[in-house]
Parts: sequence; C-alpha cells; structure tokens
Amino acid sequence: MTVAETAAPPVAPVDPAMIAERVGTELMGRDKVGQSLGIDLLDIGPGHARMAMTVREDMINGHAICHGAYLFALADTACAYAGNSRNVNTLSQGAALSFIAPAKLGDRLTAEATETAAGGRSSYVDVVIRNDGGETLAILRGQLRAVRGQVTD
Amino acid sequence: MTVAETAAPPVAPVDPAMIAERVGTELMGRDKVGQSLGIDLLDIGPGHARMAMTVREDMINGHAICHGAYLFALADTACAYAGNSRNVNTLSQGAALSFIAPAKLGDRLTAEATETAAGGRSSYVDVVIRNDGGETLAILRGQLRAVRGQVTD
Amino acid sequence: MTVAETAAPPVAPVDPAMIAERVGTELMGRDKVGQSLGIDLLDIGPGHARMAMTVREDMINGHAICHGAYLFALADTACAYAGNSRNVNTLSQGAALSFIAPAKLGDRLTAEATETAAGGRSSYVDVVIRNDGGETLAILRGQLRAVRGQVTD
Amino acid sequence: MTVAETAAPPVAPVDPAMIAERVGTELMGRDKVGQSLGIDLLDIGPGHARMAMTVREDMINGHAICHGAYLFALADTACAYAGNSRNVNTLSQGAALSFIAPAKLGDRLTAEATETAAGGRSSYVDVVIRNDGGETLAILRGQLRAVRGQVTD
Repeated sequence: MTVAETAAPPVAPVDPAMIAERVGTELMGRDKVGQSLGIDLLDIGPGHARMAMTVREDMINGHAICHGAYLFALADTACAYAGNSRNVNTLSQGAALSFIAPAKLGDRLTAEATETAAGGRSSYVDVVIRNDGGETLAILRGQLRAVRGQVTD
Repeated sequence: MTVAETAAPPVAPVDPAMIAERVGTELMGRDKVGQSLGIDLLDIGPGHARMAMTVREDMINGHAICHGAYLFALADTACAYAGNSRNVNTLSQGAALSFIAPAKLGDRLTAEATETAAGGRSSYVDVVIRNDGGETLAILRGQLRAVRGQVTD
Repeated sequence: MTVAETAAPPVAPVDPAMIAERVGTELMGRDKVGQSLGIDLLDIGPGHARMAMTVREDMINGHAICHGAYLFALADTACAYAGNSRNVNTLSQGAALSFIAPAKLGDRLTAEATETAAGGRSSYVDVVIRNDGGETLAILRGQLRAVRGQVTD
Repeated sequence: MTVAETAAPPVAPVDPAMIAERVGTELMGRDKVGQSLGIDLLDIGPGHARMAMTVREDMINGHAICHGAYLFALADTACAYAGNSRNVNTLSQGAALSFIAPAKLGDRLTAEATETAAGGRSSYVDVVIRNDGGETLAILRGQLRAVRGQVTD
C-alpha cells in the first residue's frame, strides 16, 4: 500500500538539518559516557557538529594539564555526531589526535567537527578543539565507515 | 680523575631496568587519571611498558561496547610510560588509534607499548591492546618529544 | 635609533603575501623532484599553497590507477610550500595520507594546502587533492617543524 | 560432488609460504612503478614482505636528501605486498609515514613490512625503512581493506 492509497497527509520533504537535529537528540540520550564527562551538544547539521566540555579536576594529569584521553573523548564524540548526522549508522575506524597546546583546569573547550571527505562507505571528519580564547589546543582526524541501519526512525 | 681516585663511595653502575622501574613507580604515584580508571602497571623496562585496565560500566557507550576514549586512555598511558622509561621527560605530540574489534564490559585489557623508532628528540611508541583471549582490539602509534628534565631523581 | 634617524632609505613594510611568493619562486628553483614530476605552483600565500600535477603513464600502477606515491608526492610538496611560506625553514616530521577515490591517467590533479594549526615550533597542514571535476581523491595531514634559517633572503 | 568422488589427482595442501611467493612474482610482473624506481622484492611470506631500493640522483630534493615521496613509494609498496601476500586482493585505505632520519644519495634502503593487526576486512601493516647500517630512517603504518578476488590463480 502506498502513501497515495491512504488518507494520510502528504509526507513532508526530508530536511537534512532537521534529520541531523533528530540524530543529535537520539545520540545524546544514549551517550552515557558523554553525559558523565559533561559533554554538551551545541550545534549539529549535515556533516557537522559542535560540542563543548569543561576540564574538570578528575581530568587533570601529573603535568597539571588535561589528560589527552579527555581531549580524545571530546573530539571523538564530536566526530561521531558529525559522522552520524545524516542518519546513517557509522562506526569509527580510527582517529589521529595531535596536541597543539595544553588545556587547563576549568577551560571550557569547544570541538568543531566537519566532514572533510567521503567516498564509498568511508568518510573523514576533522575536529578542532579550542579553548574559550579561541586558541587551538588539539586537532583530530577521524575515519568512519557506514554500516547497515540508521540512528533514529 | 676517576671515581676510584676519590674518597667518594663507589657509584653503582646505572641499570636501565632499575631506572625504568623507578620511573614507573614515580609516574604511578602522580597519575590520578590512571588511578581513577583503574589502570595498573604490569611491567616496565627501557622503551617498554605493559599496563592493564578492566572495562567498567561507566566506560560503555551507546553501542554497548567500550568507548574509544577509554581505549585511548589505556594505550596513551602505556605509551607515556614506555616513552618516559629512560628517565628523560617526554611529552606526547600526538597519537593515532585504530579500532580492530570491540572491547566489552568486564574485559580485562592489556596494553603492550614498545618504542619502535627514535631520532633526535622524537620517538615513536607502538601500543597493542588485547583482551583476555589475546585478541587484538586496537593499536596506537604515539609520537613523543623529549624535553628538559627527568622524571625522577 | 630608528630607521627614520638614519640616512638609509625607508624600509618597505613586510608584506606576507610577497614573502610567500618569493619563497615559492625559491622552492620551485630548487625542487628537482617536483620538476621531474611536472608539479606546478598555482598559488601561494601565508600558510597556503595550491599546486597541480597531471597523472602520467609512468605513474600508473598494476590496478591501472595512479600509484599512491605520486599522490603523496603532490600532497607532500604542497604541504611543504604552505609550511615554508612564511620564510621560516620547516621540515616535515611526517604525513598521513588517506585515499578516497582513484586518480586516472591524464587526470589534472590539484592539491590545496592550508595550515590548520600551529603551536610552538610545530605546525599542521591539511591538503586536499581533487581532480578536474572537483572530486576529492585524497587528503593528507602533514606535520612540520620549524628549524633555524629562512628559505630565501 | 567432492574431490574424492572424481578421478582427479589429490589436491596438494595449500602452503601459505608458496602462495605468498606466487603473489610476489605476480605483483612484481605488474608493478611498473616499482620497476621504474628500482624496487626489489627480497623476501615475501604470509603477512610479511621485505623490499629494497637504492636512492638515485632523481630522488634527491632541495635539501640534498631523498624526497619523502620515494620513501613513501618504497614503504607503501612493501605494505601492499605484505597485505596481498595471502592471495586476497587488498586495497590501501591510507598510510601514515613518519620521518626519523634522512636518506642520502646512494643509500641502499630496506623496507620490512609486517602485518600488525587484522579484523573484519581491515588490516594494518607496519613498515620500517632502514639504511645499510641498520639505522631506522622512516616508519609507515598502512591500512588495507580486503576486496573481492585474488591476486593470482
């Protein structure tokens, strides 16, 4: 039975921006690690996501700066949101993180993730982590692979 | 003038293995992030470290597998211990993590870190993360840079 | 004593765009490998370079597509020009190349290199290789390190 | 119908070492880029290859050292041979090259490639390039993906 055969109202054209927002909401609900680290979703669109995290006491390492794993957590999360934003399930294949400058206790970090390239089922997302002052602290290039299924209905 | 010519007590020959052990003890004491994640040091030697971590409930992501950031935390920690094992302060410049197979709740993960190459002040450490069954779950290549100072006296 | 106080002719203000052009000319003169591969400099500015190369018969591999080493050559060259564009000698520490789609015989490839981040003496340059149709074929992230000296007087 | 049911002679058990050698011979025949660069296959086995190349005048860059693209060519070629050595077609997804020390004119370089990890259709091959004196000059980590078909019959 097709849509035309039913009494249902016409289906609205698919809006990529709205789909991305729905994906963001769905992922935020599932993402307990992100919640426990205090990662917030600021913005999401097709192939794009912006997220934030504040450096907490328990993220500080022996050099009195933010442990690299928490920069990775923030960047990798932003990468995943950008990669899934078109509502196609994608899995991370790997990521390369480069440290530029240290993040300090209390810093409000923002991660800007943008899909740089896509071919076949693979895609690459570049993430830049900046502090409040706009200084770049780390960059990450993530590699994703599309798999079966979608993130949300 | 040699040591023998002075009245000073004989200096013990420098034992790289002992130095590495002292570095390991020193780093474990400082490493609050490693402690909070339950990362254990199993073995350390010159250019080498082996560490372990058990995947906890709070490390599980929306796909019911260990979040990549905790694999990064374990691998990057092992990388840092191997890189500092000669008692020269080294800082991480970056690291590339590749995911091979998922880690699951309760998995006891081991990270084996080995210095692969060194030139000038740069060095590269390769880390392999395996589960209890010996299956490789992730690999990381870290880049380090030697800076002034030493880890322990 | 200021310049105005001397009899010397007024010094022209330093123009970063002009310096970059001079660096480009200097590097092109030295770069025999680039010449032998037919790599052209299309554009250079501070932290930026655009170069082109046509895929030749001798660059084709057993799969009838351009060998990855020639994509690396083009991207790495553009990376080096962008990295040196401020007339500070920089050396490549390494580069990660990702293949998106194949380049074919006769393709006119363009490599767009842009400095993404810089901190201390390290900098990172991202390069995108596209074909005539604007399709992205490969991306490269290069890591550079500033050393003593400058490229040109 | 099984083998036993036919009159055909018994099939020889598959020897992975022999298969790897056949793959090596097949790839060498096709590999015109490798031939033009003078890349030799020294040894090949399952998940392993060792290749050599001499740094020629036309591989020297403006710093009087071997251009990175030729180190990439050698390492990437060794990576491909190791990746295909089990007679399953594999394609390179990307590779990260790190420069440790310069290669000079006339240096006889050896690239040792070893499969480090494999999962699903992905595999990772690590390559170390050394000079005649055994000094490590560069390391490469390549990512491969198995596709349909085999290299040789």
